[in-house]
Amino acid sequence: VCGYRPAERSDGPAFSGIRTFMRLPHVPLKSELDGVDLGIIGLPFDTGASFGVGCRFGPEAVRSASALLRPYHPDHELDIFSHFSAVDFGDVAIIPGFIEESLARIETAINRMVTSNIIHIGIGGDHTIALGELRGLAARYRPMSLILFDSHPDTYPDFRGHPYFHSTPFRRAVEENLINPARSILCGLRGSTFGKSDLLDPIEMGFDILNASYMHRITTDETAQRIVSRVGSSPCFLSFDIDFLDPAFAPGTGTPEIGGFTTWETQDILRKLAAVNIVGADVVEVLPSADTGRVTALAAATIVHEIISLVSLRMNNKAFSDRSEDSALDTGST
Amino acid sequence: VCGYRPAERSDGPAFSGIRTFMRLPHVPLKSELDGVDLGIIGLPFDTGASFGVGCRFGPEAVRSASALLRPYHPDHELDIFSHFSAVDFGDVAIIPGFIEESLARIETAINRMVTSNIIHIGIGGDHTIALGELRGLAARYRPMSLILFDSHPDTYPDFRGHPYFHSTPFRRAVEENLINPARSILCGLRGSTFGKSDLLDPIEMGFDILNASYMHRITTDETAQRIVSRVGSSPCFLSFDIDFLDPAFAPGTGTPEIGGFTTWETQDILRKLAAVNIVGADVVEVLPSADTGRVTALAAATIVHEIISLVSLRMNNKAFSDRSEDSALDTGST
Amino acid sequence: VCGYRPAERSDGPAFSGIRTFMRLPHVPLKSELDGVDLGIIGLPFDTGASFGVGCRFGPEAVRSASALLRPYHPDHELDIFSHFSAVDFGDVAIIPGFIEESLARIETAINRMVTSNIIHIGIGGDHTIALGELRGLAARYRPMSLILFDSHPDTYPDFRGHPYFHSTPFRRAVEENLINPARSILCGLRGSTFGKSDLLDPIEMGFDILNASYMHRITTDETAQRIVSRVGSSPCFLSFDIDFLDPAFAPGTGTPEIGGFTTWETQDILRKLAAVNIVGADVVEVLPSADTGRVTALAAATIVHEIISLVSLRMNNKAFSDRSEDSALDTGST
Amino acid sequence: VCGYRPAERSDGPAFSGIRTFMRLPHVPLKSELDGVDLGIIGLPFDTGASFGVGCRFGPEAVRSASALLRPYHPDHELDIFSHFSAVDFGDVAIIPGFIEESLARIETAINRMVTSNIIHIGIGGDHTIALGELRGLAARYRPMSLILFDSHPDTYPDFRGHPYFHSTPFRRAVEENLINPARSILCGLRGSTFGKSDLLDPIEMGFDILNASYMHRITTDETAQRIVSRVGSSPCFLSFDIDFLDPAFAPGTGTPEIGGFTTWETQDILRKLAAVNIVGADVVEVLPSADTGRVTALAAATIVHEIISLVSLRMNNKAFSDRSEDSALDTGST
Amino acid sequence: VCGYRPAERSDGPAFSGIRTFMRLPHVPLKSELDGVDLGIIGLPFDTGASFGVGCRFGPEAVRSASALLRPYHPDHELDIFSHFSAVDFGDVAIIPGFIEESLARIETAINRMVTSNIIHIGIGGDHTIALGELRGLAARYRPMSLILFDSHPDTYPDFRGHPYFHSTPFRRAVEENLINPARSILCGLRGSTFGKSDLLDPIEMGFDILNASYMHRITTDETAQRIVSRVGSSPCFLSFDIDFLDPAFAPGTGTPEIGGFTTWETQDILRKLAAVNIVGADVVEVLPSADTGRVTALAAATIVHEIISLVSLRMNNKAFSDRSEDSALDTGST
Amino acid sequence: VCGYRPAERSDGPAFSGIRTFMRLPHVPLKSELDGVDLGIIGLPFDTGASFGVGCRFGPEAVRSASALLRPYHPDHELDIFSHFSAVDFGDVAIIPGFIEESLARIETAINRMVTSNIIHIGIGGDHTIALGELRGLAARYRPMSLILFDSHPDTYPDFRGHPYFHSTPFRRAVEENLINPARSILCGLRGSTFGKSDLLDPIEMGFDILNASYMHRITTDETAQRIVSRVGSSPCFLSFDIDFLDPAFAPGTGTPEIGGFTTWETQDILRKLAAVNIVGADVVEVLPSADTGRVTALAAATIVHEIISLVSLRMNNKAFSDRSEDSALDTGST
Repeated sequence: VCGYRPAERSDGPAFSGIRTFMRLPHVPLKSELDGVDLGIIGLPFDTGASFGVGCRFGPEAVRSASALLRPYHPDHELDIFSHFSAVDFGDVAIIPGFIEESLARIETAINRMVTSNIIHIGIGGDHTIALGELRGLAARYRPMSLILFDSHPDTYPDFRGHPYFHSTPFRRAVEENLINPARSILCGLRGSTFGKSDLLDPIEMGFDILNASYMHRITTDETAQRIVSRVGSSPCFLSFDIDFLDPAFAPGTGTPEIGGFTTWETQDILRKLAAVNIVGADVVEVLPSADTGRVTALAAATIVHEIISLVSLRMNNKAFSDRSEDSALDTGST
Repeated sequence: VCGYRPAERSDGPAFSGIRTFMRLPHVPLKSELDGVDLGIIGLPFDTGASFGVGCRFGPEAVRSASALLRPYHPDHELDIFSHFSAVDFGDVAIIPGFIEESLARIETAINRMVTSNIIHIGIGGDHTIALGELRGLAARYRPMSLILFDSHPDTYPDFRGHPYFHSTPFRRAVEENLINPARSILCGLRGSTFGKSDLLDPIEMGFDILNASYMHRITTDETAQRIVSRVGSSPCFLSFDIDFLDPAFAPGTGTPEIGGFTTWETQDILRKLAAVNIVGADVVEVLPSADTGRVTALAAATIVHEIISLVSLRMNNKAFSDRSEDSALDTGST
Repeated sequence: VCGYRPAERSDGPAFSGIRTFMRLPHVPLKSELDGVDLGIIGLPFDTGASFGVGCRFGPEAVRSASALLRPYHPDHELDIFSHFSAVDFGDVAIIPGFIEESLARIETAINRMVTSNIIHIGIGGDHTIALGELRGLAARYRPMSLILFDSHPDTYPDFRGHPYFHSTPFRRAVEENLINPARSILCGLRGSTFGKSDLLDPIEMGFDILNASYMHRITTDETAQRIVSRVGSSPCFLSFDIDFLDPAFAPGTGTPEIGGFTTWETQDILRKLAAVNIVGADVVEVLPSADTGRVTALAAATIVHEIISLVSLRMNNKAFSDRSEDSALDTGST
Repeated sequence: VCGYRPAERSDGPAFSGIRTFMRLPHVPLKSELDGVDLGIIGLPFDTGASFGVGCRFGPEAVRSASALLRPYHPDHELDIFSHFSAVDFGDVAIIPGFIEESLARIETAINRMVTSNIIHIGIGGDHTIALGELRGLAARYRPMSLILFDSHPDTYPDFRGHPYFHSTPFRRAVEENLINPARSILCGLRGSTFGKSDLLDPIEMGFDILNASYMHRITTDETAQRIVSRVGSSPCFLSFDIDFLDPAFAPGTGTPEIGGFTTWETQDILRKLAAVNIVGADVVEVLPSADTGRVTALAAATIVHEIISLVSLRMNNKAFSDRSEDSALDTGST
Repeated sequence: VCGYRPAERSDGPAFSGIRTFMRLPHVPLKSELDGVDLGIIGLPFDTGASFGVGCRFGPEAVRSASALLRPYHPDHELDIFSHFSAVDFGDVAIIPGFIEESLARIETAINRMVTSNIIHIGIGGDHTIALGELRGLAARYRPMSLILFDSHPDTYPDFRGHPYFHSTPFRRAVEENLINPARSILCGLRGSTFGKSDLLDPIEMGFDILNASYMHRITTDETAQRIVSRVGSSPCFLSFDIDFLDPAFAPGTGTPEIGGFTTWETQDILRKLAAVNIVGADVVEVLPSADTGRVTALAAATIVHEIISLVSLRMNNKAFSDRSEDSALDTGST
Repeated sequence: VCGYRPAERSDGPAFSGIRTFMRLPHVPLKSELDGVDLGIIGLPFDTGASFGVGCRFGPEAVRSASALLRPYHPDHELDIFSHFSAVDFGDVAIIPGFIEESLARIETAINRMVTSNIIHIGIGGDHTIALGELRGLAARYRPMSLILFDSHPDTYPDFRGHPYFHSTPFRRAVEENLINPARSILCGLRGSTFGKSDLLDPIEMGFDILNASYMHRITTDETAQRIVSRVGSSPCFLSFDIDFLDPAFAPGTGTPEIGGFTTWETQDILRKLAAVNIVGADVVEVLPSADTGRVTALAAATIVHEIISLVSLRMNNKAFSDRSEDSALDTGST
């Protein structure tokens, strides 16, 4: 049995207590990390935001909304924490205003986790942070596949001459051989762009692309199938920009685009990704100051819950069927 | 011809006047009640709320939003109040902080209405109130069928040892033989739970269940058909928890769950329930302090309008075709 | 090459600078207007609003949200401003509280534009303004076809004896022979009405009608096809009332109706209207004080962007294929 | 003993019931009006607003906030309704968009009240309504004195050639001999103006003026003394524009000016006006869509409560000391 | 040197990390409590609220706002935590909807703290909780003096026959001999009441009263002096209802009253209470759903900070001058 | 006569038109600048914010609120633009995320203005921008005196090793000899600090300090007198951090401190600074996403208006009395 799971109902009502994600134990990242399967980690960095800014308060808002989440996932018929252990590591001590130092601190934290066999789910923060996460994971998995849910590809060449910003992380990640575009897929792209290259570039870089217009015409089964067949069994980083959702479902984000997806479509796709070998994930660009009725924070928290469930499901299956397969998790090679 | 109908346009613009539901006449429940077919009744009780609280202001918000509603229903081609009379009875004098006394007062009020041949539509308040309503209706109809639109089954065994709370009313109602699960259906269930039993329990109690995941895959026709065939001609209590809607459509509620339904889907289902013998109804869990842009209140008010229309439609049909059938309404037997 | 296009990225970040639509040059309407293909014009009039009021701040909010829009339209593969020139003319100096004077000023402004071969897109303002726009366009195009996206037909006979209000513009427009109902179509009608005539009247006036209930059952292709075949090549005024959208997608409007449309459905329909000969357009009833998370303003701004793209697309095609066809644009006859 | 007083606590908690002012009985203005001393009347007109608009929802908001008010006034040691009777007459059926017709309807309603010996307190609505009220009162009291609390004098000559708007009522009232400037005082004026005449004009018209800058330097005693000595025993109309308060205390108004007054200062002044012969009053320019945390509505409701208390106090004193003095109330002469 | 103090700046920016009060260490109340001088404890109970409800989220909001607070108090020239140790104990596991059980749990928690020589500061929650705190403290201090900052005396006899509610705690406390009215003072009372007795009762019970009207006329020095001389050296419970502040400074509360106090006046009074022997304190009635711009939460957090400083100051003075006086702290007798 | 002044009333109502400050003409900074006395310049930079972030939208919000301002200042009896010319230069093209580049761009823009004899008023933006402004002004005035209204001194040594941030500009400015502390004064300091040095440092650097606690005890006359005598006739930079105001008056800022000042106190002080030789000014730290009811933006806009008035007043006086004194303005020496 695992040591780390959410507080019990007898520990007080859901609205009480110090806000950790799903009322999981708060364990400092510098502690002994034995027996932890998954760690939530806040990445409150937002200096890379080009328009709306303030995602530094994203982790707080997502933790607050997560009080509504419960440990059983009916669609997976999964008691998430029965054979699976998770903690909330708090936030990485990023430095607002300073991108490179902050990326280095994120990298160090993720590195600490991945080398302790802990799968992390980062809560952003703007999308710049993904580069720090990928660098941290690279100690073990290189290159990874990427599943991106986002209305923007975030593969711009630069930001007015600067390499790091929330629109560039995945181009940098390809250049640094952190991700393998041939096993990666970008889903939900939409909205006006500065020019034709904004959407051509990622195709030329080798990514598979599912534009929103196309996704709106196919079924969630087809989308999920396309994702699964693209990434196969490779170690995969799943990055979820909350602006994948339509602004009606997620107004709280800095560069919203109309014509997006519902929370149901999102959950329906995610639940079909149980075969994916997720080695790390994040949910980013939650901007509480633009949120209304906390719907964005709740959507983000529930998506984290869906991802935890996928990871737990995969671990549980392995736990009961074939533990030797476990070694595959460790190699990280595609 | 009926005496009670909404104010005329010549009585002032829709935004003027004392706020009653749809500008219906405000008649105290202790008055003579002759000639009233339907009564709106506010049930501003929220002590049973487990997370977000403040539904005591729900009736005020729904009445305010109802100023936008008009007396003709185009899809039913129905002039709602042409042969049908409705009033706003104001609110039941519940006692905040005290569940059992409040339930008793609700029971008394509904009893007064049902014994005067008045169909009521309650505006909540948290879902605890449904038990008071069902007890009040039981003077005439026992057991009733239940149509529940809700993301939660509200059939928990208890709340930390206490029998009454907003998660338990329908278990109590079954135990008290107020509702007959074999003719009842719970629609829209979704979200994480504390354990497997949360969803198995209502099935074992005999309810028919339509999970949200399933409903998202079938048509609104199929859902409506399933509901109609389940309840048949039995006297039916229709209970609509506003969290059936997705938080994008109804952020103003205390325990929201993403992955829900649109207002269009809801209207489309409701409009197909004209065959149902509604003997009482409520719309609950409207939490104005979490609402944004009054969309939740407007959705709730319009759903009340849809239910009024169903009741009026059924009465009108009877009025013109076969008044002797009316006796069936009085027996309350299934 | 054209002189008027949005500010360059080197002119500063998208959130900087004086707010014009899409950072287009602000040119006073009294200037020389050579070389302008399209003009954005604010029409901040709201005295005709029957319920929620304050659309006078609509143009400001839409301009603010438009900072997020970029000059390339991926679905049309269109660099909007490469062969097409647009400016922001600021607002017409309407007189709040005085309908007829304000209509006259709107008419004058639109007349100035249409006689300078400039296609205008008005940003409202309540729907009363459409009558002023149509009168202004009539100097060149009479009668026009009308494509209306709206939850209400706005064809009421009068408002308590007064001819001009936000529910009457299109009845007046038919009476004044500004629009030809036989080539016009009203899309998205829904919500309760005061009586049967509210929806029968526009049919009797000769309009084609797509009720929301019907539109929800057909595809966006079918809707677009019906619109295109209705209006043919006639000069067309496209009027978009933001309450066409569901309140979840556009809470910021004065007379919202649930059961509406998503932004994706809207974009999908609009993008199929490239064959329509748009000679003027507006987006109206944006009420910032009821907006939340600026989603309504962003939806409105993006819809303006979609309409600009349609106009640019049609001009570009003509520019490269058959400029002589241009004369058709000038006759305005159906 | 009087028939009309607020609902009892046993009628339900303060947050329950149909919203009338202070839970007073709602009596239609066309009823028999015997035994009513004071009537609350909503005047939801806002077509005269020059900037922020939407005061049509002011009466609803003030009634909602008034649920917090109770019937005993500790500072006056007054049980307000013990010998004093008050009702809520609902709203006048004004016509949005049409100033002169609306003024006529207001005049008729106030006339009905004043000729029935009922003192009215109007809840606005924009300040244009004051002219209608004064015309209605003039049937009995002409000219009246005016006590104005406002950051603007509302004595502009016209609005772009139109006589009626929310900046002109008191100039019209002087021209129509409704008020006598020599016994009137304008308190709290501040903010930038269009020119020197904006503040000189009312002085030339004969008003006494207390600029905010001056009021900030004197005591509340001095202000109250100056008011009382100015109006003497003449029949007095007290008009309170909520923008007298600083925006921190009343953000919900259409033309706010910083540098204003606190609610305490306001209450302290009002409580010293017991000697004033108030024959009618209003609280205007409450704009709920700009309110935050309902502080403006609460301030407005409490100010109405203070005015009711002044009227009750004066009646009570007369009731116990010298009823023959009552005739003075009826003459209306100064 | 003490073990427990706020996180260092090097632990990350103020907006990062799990939200404890002032980033103090979170220590479960069931741990060993050696070396803790002061404990913050959340009391998220709101079933006793008579109007606005939702103070259950008060502790979360106050903790969130406290991130802005720093460890040095310039006016006291005090490095708060240099010789003083504080922790955040999280929240008491109250049971929403059930007053007596919740009071018992609060009593147990406070008892645990006081018997461990830990001074507590409770964060409410509605004012009902004060009774639980006083009962918990009574194990050591009985009776205590009370300093109450509040717009209401909270000494009602009952709530519709029930003894416990947020308007009754201090009457119960007197009846139970928990507080000694002769050494207690109620400050800031204002607002309308149900009758004369509401304010006479506490006087008859023996409390000293400072009405708001009176306090507005005297200096903060005089108020502080009156408080200090009233309570003397007796063990004192300081209870701060946030509605002591004016709604402009604290809109986020359930029963606001205009005419209140500024934050500056509040700080100025509190800073002069260093002589008071505070043995426990709370800040209550923070209602986040009614807060705007987080000003109420920030005011509440800063008031907690002021109280911590008072306690630290007193301990520091003792630490340096006369530790033997310490025994006086333990006797609790007046 | 001057060419540049606000739009006339006949140009449309105050809520219409492209939003420039006070509807002044928008002139690009690269144009010919003859005949401009004062320029408004937006400085939408916020990467230096340590807590709440998003001041990049400050200029937009302040311009929007400025629509309520009018050209005559009653207290100064000044027709501001009668002999004085002002424009809105739009925003400096700062680069979000990059402090040093942004400072350089600000410096360049201010330099362009000062060398064209234009007094600038910057609208922030976080306080980091002040360093850029001072560097730009230094081409002509070095060192300047500083009048700072702020709750923080902004004289921290560094931010985690980095020299530039919103807490350090005035230390850098002293080090760079841009300002002369001996002729400078910091007003309104309050709030908890990290340590004793935070407030001792500026004293040691030579600044005069008016803590909030002290300012609350003296009159506005005394404060103004102290400021005026401190700066004398030296060229002065007036920097107004909106957090000088209490959060009730200015909730929309990133690091608010309770216990602050009212808008009236602020205006009263500013109006007494007509003798000060203002050569540049800014109003900073306006955070629209935390603003409520636009009170912060209105306060900021009105403070800009007060500063414009001071500059105009001084110029007017010179214009009529002694133009030769003008040369003093040019020397910039103390």
